[in-house]
Amino acid sequence: MTEQTISAAFYRGGKSFAVEQTTAPAPKPGEVSVRVAYCGICGTDMHVYHGNMDARVGFNRVIGHEMSGVVAAIGEGVDTVTLGQKVVVRPLDHCGDCPACDAGHRHICHKLKFLGLDTDGAMQEIWTVPAHTLHGLPDELRLDHAALIEPVAVACHDVRLSQLKEGEDVVVIGGGPIGILVAMVARDAGGKVVVSEVNPNRLKIAQKLGFKTINPAEADLTAEINAITGDKGADVVFEVSGTQPGVDAMTQVAATRARIVMVAIHAQKPQIDLFQFFWRELQLIGARVYEPEDYEKAIGIISSGGVDADTVITDVAALEDIQTAFESLDRSPTALKSLIKVGADL
Amino acid sequence: MTEQTISAAFYRGGKSFAVEQTTAPAPKPGEVSVRVAYCGICGTDMHVYHGNMDARVGFNRVIGHEMSGVVAAIGEGVDTVTLGQKVVVRPLDHCGDCPACDAGHRHICHKLKFLGLDTDGAMQEIWTVPAHTLHGLPDELRLDHAALIEPVAVACHDVRLSQLKEGEDVVVIGGGPIGILVAMVARDAGGKVVVSEVNPNRLKIAQKLGFKTINPAEADLTAEINAITGDKGADVVFEVSGTQPGVDAMTQVAATRARIVMVAIHAQKPQIDLFQFFWRELQLIGARVYEPEDYEKAIGIISSGGVDADTVITDVAALEDIQTAFESLDRSPTALKSLIKVGADL
Repeated sequence: MTEQTISAAFYRGGKSFAVEQTTAPAPKPGEVSVRVAYCGICGTDMHVYHGNMDARVGFNRVIGHEMSGVVAAIGEGVDTVTLGQKVVVRPLDHCGDCPACDAGHRHICHKLKFLGLDTDGAMQEIWTVPAHTLHGLPDELRLDHAALIEPVAVACHDVRLSQLKEGEDVVVIGGGPIGILVAMVARDAGGKVVVSEVNPNRLKIAQKLGFKTINPAEADLTAEINAITGDKGADVVFEVSGTQPGVDAMTQVAATRARIVMVAIHAQKPQIDLFQFFWRELQLIGARVYEPEDYEKAIGIISSGGVDADTVITDVAALEDIQTAFESLDRSPTALKSLIKVGADL
Repeated sequence: MTEQTISAAFYRGGKSFAVEQTTAPAPKPGEVSVRVAYCGICGTDMHVYHGNMDARVGFNRVIGHEMSGVVAAIGEGVDTVTLGQKVVVRPLDHCGDCPACDAGHRHICHKLKFLGLDTDGAMQEIWTVPAHTLHGLPDELRLDHAALIEPVAVACHDVRLSQLKEGEDVVVIGGGPIGILVAMVARDAGGKVVVSEVNPNRLKIAQKLGFKTINPAEADLTAEINAITGDKGADVVFEVSGTQPGVDAMTQVAATRARIVMVAIHAQKPQIDLFQFFWRELQLIGARVYEPEDYEKAIGIISSGGVDADTVITDVAALEDIQTAFESLDRSPTALKSLIKVGADL
């Protein structure tokens, strides 16, 4: 492939995107160009839209990383993919030279570049990325469903780090898009999952997906979890709410030696009941993004229907309608995952 | 053994003990009577002395649990110890019927009885306990040194739960009696240990024991740890200070995927930098008391000299001088571990 003219959506600041023509370069050695099919709108992308990440992304950035596509061109020295193969990108580029990389934790590299934030991303017809970021997909997997692989991989990472065993009691605190995916992956792993959420629309979605739900604004969450578990408490808790009441609840519902996974991004420093960590020997496990095995697990779960993709995907818009798609998602009380259909012919 | 008259120190409230004659009962089936040699004064005992635990212990309680002794009488059905054998008591009695016991976490039983607080303890010449709480000692182990086994077992539990591997960088935040024991056990396990402490007397003791120390009131703890570890940070952190600055420091000095062990009892709910847990995938591990294998490990470490018992034991007083011993320890800036010599002839 030589250079070619494509459409791309540029974030221009002030809650605005501009879809413009740009030039997709030929892939350099070690790179692969992917014709993008779908790209989901992540919570992080909404933060960009709201202007919270302007210092990081600037005003000439193509964002987007929850994507699917097919291989369009292959750079020199790359033998891991074939032309036309369905793929997703694991959008992490590590430095290879920091203490985290040295310790084998490349996904939390001290100088990690997140593709689609620190570099241009997938809201463009052709996206050129390092070959090591690609995962091949089964031929029969639908590319709209495949755009869920990235957020499902987040949930797979969370559940893997929790060491959840079949039959264990699980509480997911916060039933937003990530919380719901965590709940589905935990259920797929054999967990008995309860979703705690205050938003009535999100409660309805969780119920529709077959989860037992508790609204802690209306019921005593701890008492209900104790009743369900014979006063044991939850073996695994996922804190996905990012709120002080969520942090309060996470220690209250936890069984002795429970594992509490910190999924949420807490910009403030909440107060934590450290006494309960001591008293019940609780564990708190921080979890960020994903490792290659989480991507493979997510591909398997999406392929097997362990995540109900058709319920999770609530909207699909064309690339030229990206502005409207962000505006709609921003004010929607019921949307879970909005996709941008970047490649009209895929 | 039939009943016999012994001396015992009763906590009477208002920072006072009374040494009085009392009757030691014969051991019931499943029990063993131990002639107590030494009993250390624990931080918990100081809390009792200060009146903070009056509701729990009352005013007719013999406290004490950091003890050593020899078997004086054996109840029916007990075949695990022999008369005259040197022993220590692991002072935990579990219910056997709660979710924690069901899950095999008997040391954090929901209805745990702590011997020497919820029952009478070791500040008496003969202490009768359930046989399952006893650990036999090597014949050659000095009984004054053996009185350190209980607090060393706490440290062994903390270090075991940290999964410390040889050569890893360790920071112990708080160099009091437990912090120093944690530091010694972590060093014995192959850790490269730095002790962070603000008290000049405690810093001197830690230095005398061969530890690198940092006073975070005078130096930038995080910068120093980064300098020592090549910007990696500490692989394992023990928070033993029980303070907000200690909780702030624990996330600042931690490497990616570091394990932070919560040893301290935080009565307040401190603020925690949960973002760092997410960002660096930190783990927080609550650790309370000990399990049988921690006692066996502690017996081995005391026997091998892995803990410098003669430096840790700073005072020994007779049972009749218990009042003075508590008063002295309460105002001493340099004392580490004070022992009561309960059995004058042992």
